[in-house]
Amino acid sequence: MDTLAAPLAAVRDRIARLRDALDQHGVDAVLVPSSDPHLSEYLPERWKAREWLSGFTGSVGTLVVTRDHAGLWADSRYWVQAEAQLAGTGIVLMKLSSGAGTQYIDWLATHLHPGQSLAVDGQVVGLAFLRALRTALEPRGIRLRTDLDLPGQIWPDRPARPTPPVYEHRAPQAPLGRDAKLEALRHAMQDRGAQWHVLSTLDDIAYLFNLRGADVSYNPVFVAHALVGLAEVTLFIDPGKVGPHVQQALAADGVTLAPYEEAARALSALPPGATVLIDPRRVTHALREALPAGVQVVEATNPTTLAKSRKTEAEAGFIRETMAEDGAALAEFFAWLEHALARGERLTELDIDTRITEARARREGFVSPSFATIAGFNANGAMPHYRATPQSHAVIEGSGLLLIDSGGQYLGGTTDITRVVPIGAITAEHRRDFTLVLKAMMALSRARFPRGLRSPLLDAIARAPLWAEGLDYGHGTGHGVGYFLNVHEGPQVLSVHAAADAHTAMEPGMITSIEPGLYRPGQWGIRIENLAMNVDAGRTEFGEWLAFETLTLCPIDTRCIDPSLLRADEREWLDAYHATVRERVGPRVSGDAADWLAERTRPLV
Amino acid sequence: MDTLAAPLAAVRDRIARLRDALDQHGVDAVLVPSSDPHLSEYLPERWKAREWLSGFTGSVGTLVVTRDHAGLWADSRYWVQAEAQLAGTGIVLMKLSSGAGTQYIDWLATHLHPGQSLAVDGQVVGLAFLRALRTALEPRGIRLRTDLDLPGQIWPDRPARPTPPVYEHRAPQAPLGRDAKLEALRHAMQDRGAQWHVLSTLDDIAYLFNLRGADVSYNPVFVAHALVGLAEVTLFIDPGKVGPHVQQALAADGVTLAPYEEAARALSALPPGATVLIDPRRVTHALREALPAGVQVVEATNPTTLAKSRKTEAEAGFIRETMAEDGAALAEFFAWLEHALARGERLTELDIDTRITEARARREGFVSPSFATIAGFNANGAMPHYRATPQSHAVIEGSGLLLIDSGGQYLGGTTDITRVVPIGAITAEHRRDFTLVLKAMMALSRARFPRGLRSPLLDAIARAPLWAEGLDYGHGTGHGVGYFLNVHEGPQVLSVHAAADAHTAMEPGMITSIEPGLYRPGQWGIRIENLAMNVDAGRTEFGEWLAFETLTLCPIDTRCIDPSLLRADEREWLDAYHATVRERVGPRVSGDAADWLAERTRPLV
Repeated sequence: MDTLAAPLAAVRDRIARLRDALDQHGVDAVLVPSSDPHLSEYLPERWKAREWLSGFTGSVGTLVVTRDHAGLWADSRYWVQAEAQLAGTGIVLMKLSSGAGTQYIDWLATHLHPGQSLAVDGQVVGLAFLRALRTALEPRGIRLRTDLDLPGQIWPDRPARPTPPVYEHRAPQAPLGRDAKLEALRHAMQDRGAQWHVLSTLDDIAYLFNLRGADVSYNPVFVAHALVGLAEVTLFIDPGKVGPHVQQALAADGVTLAPYEEAARALSALPPGATVLIDPRRVTHALREALPAGVQVVEATNPTTLAKSRKTEAEAGFIRETMAEDGAALAEFFAWLEHALARGERLTELDIDTRITEARARREGFVSPSFATIAGFNANGAMPHYRATPQSHAVIEGSGLLLIDSGGQYLGGTTDITRVVPIGAITAEHRRDFTLVLKAMMALSRARFPRGLRSPLLDAIARAPLWAEGLDYGHGTGHGVGYFLNVHEGPQVLSVHAAADAHTAMEPGMITSIEPGLYRPGQWGIRIENLAMNVDAGRTEFGEWLAFETLTLCPIDTRCIDPSLLRADEREWLDAYHATVRERVGPRVSGDAADWLAERTRPLV
Repeated sequence: MDTLAAPLAAVRDRIARLRDALDQHGVDAVLVPSSDPHLSEYLPERWKAREWLSGFTGSVGTLVVTRDHAGLWADSRYWVQAEAQLAGTGIVLMKLSSGAGTQYIDWLATHLHPGQSLAVDGQVVGLAFLRALRTALEPRGIRLRTDLDLPGQIWPDRPARPTPPVYEHRAPQAPLGRDAKLEALRHAMQDRGAQWHVLSTLDDIAYLFNLRGADVSYNPVFVAHALVGLAEVTLFIDPGKVGPHVQQALAADGVTLAPYEEAARALSALPPGATVLIDPRRVTHALREALPAGVQVVEATNPTTLAKSRKTEAEAGFIRETMAEDGAALAEFFAWLEHALARGERLTELDIDTRITEARARREGFVSPSFATIAGFNANGAMPHYRATPQSHAVIEGSGLLLIDSGGQYLGGTTDITRVVPIGAITAEHRRDFTLVLKAMMALSRARFPRGLRSPLLDAIARAPLWAEGLDYGHGTGHGVGYFLNVHEGPQVLSVHAAADAHTAMEPGMITSIEPGLYRPGQWGIRIENLAMNVDAGRTEFGEWLAFETLTLCPIDTRCIDPSLLRADEREWLDAYHATVRERVGPRVSGDAADWLAERTRPLV
């Protein structure tokens, strides 16, 4: 299913050697998460231990190996892929039911016996996660070993840390300077009574220092830690990654450079009595342990996580521009696609990826795709995280639905959009499913809600039209999106499956995807995704209000709609959206793309 | 505002003596919650220390006293009442913004200095609450003293523990026997690897032992703790409360009785190595501390809390019968009310309470009101927890809206209903507000949702129609309701303000109120409340589905509706509901009540 998938024999051998390591160290089980020292969602090759051990290439999954059991926990997005990749490895797919992201903890609690022990590498698990593990296991007399990197011990050709250089994200697209960001951070630290702050999450670091890199596919981030004091700041990064000009720029803002490996030692050298702000969900257990006993720890969400989630007016201006450019690229792509199919060209899912990336690459400020394009025809579209590969992909022929989920990194913002295209003659069932998903997308896109509302609470508004028909989807409705940063960015998330937490209050300037879906395994998949920004919707005696400004500018294919299922107010919203798309994107396209745009933005009749 | 309110001088004197106690013990602040050793919502007089100290009679509020500040934190339901009751006491009302039920913790964290200490009585705060307090304060060097009951030390005439006898809740209305409940509980304990379980919450204890009492107004519970082992079970209760017949019945099921005060000692005597199941939100810090170091603690929600929330089919049968009886009582009451007003009788809000309780008292199986009737005319209705008193109440004259929130305890169930009655000539604004609240109530009442969904996530479906107009209300949309038990019962709660937690999964048989509202301070208040039960709504390839069966059987006054604001499907739902009310309640009423029922259940035109 993926070029990187390891041969079965290799996987079986690696699991066997992992069990030898268990015996050597006298532990009874090992937990291998999808994680790195920076708690990243997408990992540099060096830290893809779970993938290397199991052969499962999905981005999220947890491997647990005991002497007599090897299980990989994955959520419904990955079940089909994991079934295929794990077949014959002896590793059992353990299906995570939605809303229970850590069922393997319960499994460990019930399958390990008092006196037994579990190894989990403290270098790659978050402090909050380790506490949850401890709370579940220690009362049952199960011991934790956090000092062992067992996969690392049996991984001969383990990749080195990534070496690409970092570069500056400059004005005008970076309207807020590094000095201003450091000043704001220090105020937030002082508000919380802290003199020091430790950052490990790569997007927080890239945001704070106005630097970007290429250490992780699609995410313009780089591997580093940072220690911020009220008067000094140190960036822990491999020296080879920082060229002379960037060094000068950093020095000008008082940033000291130190080798990447020095981070833990620097923390252990903090003066007794120092107060350190750390985010238990954004710092590893190992770094927390590095702090001397004498320091006081204040736990709070990284101030930069909250700051970067709220795009400034200046950033919003560049994002609107970027969305129009992205919409123009999409118009050129879709125009090509429809003509190529009309001409009877033989196209595969792989061609979609190539062409859509080429179209974006012609646009101002484009840097790279923001994630691996998902182009899934019919049954492949029913796998929300399907990815076509040279070994396995479909030819777009006959009839059905083609789902395309893609996005771009631009100097002026990050895009992420999903559209569904009808191929040949589609059926009433296709149209009913598509229209119900569209109703869900519109219901949330039009919602007005109180400022400060916890974001997961909004998801039911999107799902209600599907729930009413006994339909649902296993993934979240929306994720935060960065500004020329990670396409998945916290803290807000629109999902009934999310662990609702206090740090997801909806605030002006946050950008979130709205992407309900519907998946018929073996048949077709539908997902309609726009990005939307929280904007001020006035104040009444009952409070301050927010609404979503839809940012994405690309037609929603009306050929897939059953208009009889739409209310008048829903039709009006869709026509108004298409009028906006035509007006904003029209001036940026010509020829076939302009014709296509005019055709696909015509009002419903 | 309430007969119990203490004179201002007394309150000022008590606060002064509380500060003397701070000095004596060398602590800098004291936190006095609304709580008791059983973490009850409604407290026996003995534990109303916060009320005795502050004069604020609301059921929820937290008092914090330092040497130079005295603040009472209350949520928006109580602001008007608290302003009035605290005026002149020197105690400052600290308004809790919705969704931040523990802002006083942040206040303490920022207003106390490192090295200072806070006293909170470990006998009356939950383990989970104390942990939250500790997490917030100890990193800042603020010490906790949990061994001091400072209010108790300055409370000369403190009431004794309540003495009313307990009685059995018997078949047929108690379909499940004590032995069966104990067996189910022991299975749940074993599933969690526990040999022992400590219960302190009064409704859990009343449910488990099929006993009821009268220690707390409106809640048929009694003061006790329980220790359940796999082979033995002890009920810690004042001996005078248990008559010979009840003693025999308990003994027959292997229940040992012990004095109330013995609970902590019994816990401290548990054998080392014993595994004890406790619910950190349902056991006090002090009881947790009583456990010897050698025992293993498994933390989980009380199994009885989950069991009693899911009413059995047999219980549901009695509840439907009880709802029809309650509906008949309400028909008789409303018929009287409308005639009395038509005759020009002078009625006050107090008469409502008297008459509605009399009407219920004539009905089969009635035991008592399930809470203090709220009858609020116009501006009084804008205080969600307003209560008319002999000192302060309104005469129902002129025109406006009369809000009546009342309920009954019956052997076959607990009821809770809110209706709004138009008095004289009401305005278009009245109708618009009423209709929007009705739309909210119907939107949620008609929702279909996945089994296991966390209940707070449903609230946005109710609020969306109000949010769209910039309207909202400060309280939750729904609370769980017991079976001849507390009218407020966990674990599920339908509220965007609730701390979303994993133990609120919606399951079949749960009963929840659906009661959106809208309050115009100084003008009028609207709330429309039905009780609804989670019922099976089928299974599809996307999962198991639940829907709400509306249990409450009483007309919603169509004279308050602006039909132009309702969609056709909303009108159909309301007409169908009224047809059901007429069909189920009609056979139980005659004369004026029957005429009233026929008139008020006519379809919308």
